[in-house]
Amino acid sequence: MTDQIQNMPNRSEIAKIFGEVLQELRRKRGLSQEEFGFECELHRTYISLLERGKRIPSLTTIIQLAIVLKVSPSEIVRQVEARLGWPATNIFD
Amino acid sequence: MTDQIQNMPNRSEIAKIFGEVLQELRRKRGLSQEEFGFECELHRTYISLLERGKRIPSLTTIIQLAIVLKVSPSEIVRQVEARLGWPATNIFD
Repeated sequence: MTDQIQNMPNRSEIAKIFGEVLQELRRKRGLSQEEFGFECELHRTYISLLERGKRIPSLTTIIQLAIVLKVSPSEIVRQVEARLGWPATNIFD
Repeated sequence: MTDQIQNMPNRSEIAKIFGEVLQELRRKRGLSQEEFGFECELHRTYISLLERGKRIPSLTTIIQLAIVLKVSPSEIVRQVEARLGWPATNIFD
């Protein structure tokens, strides 16, 4: 194992940041959690759990969310990594 | 639900493309599945399942893999979406 992995943001930190990004993007589209869930074919409760950082999405879910948000999946991930302070100084040395 | 979601690549297609991208990036780093798994703190068997498109990674796993591959998580996702033909013509109209 590497120091990088040891120092990586933990699961709950990643989930929290992802939730913040998701909520902002959803609000920017002017959608309620219910409307957004309907469009994504995901339950409103699951959207709420994601936004509160209680769930970590799979790549499939990220793609599903991105389609409805009309952004690319990589753009969502880019926003998450930027807030996590990526690249961490110790990662790309 | 939207036409976009109806027409989105299915889970197994996403998994297959992700696996191809992962395998290429791992080989580019000159790592065996075993070495790579060790660095990522993921079991070699799980790496193999991901590369064969039998598992879909979570965002946390993508970040873990990216750290060891020394690419950003969004870059991995960007490569996947490019191969999936993103943006699909019907998505951003």
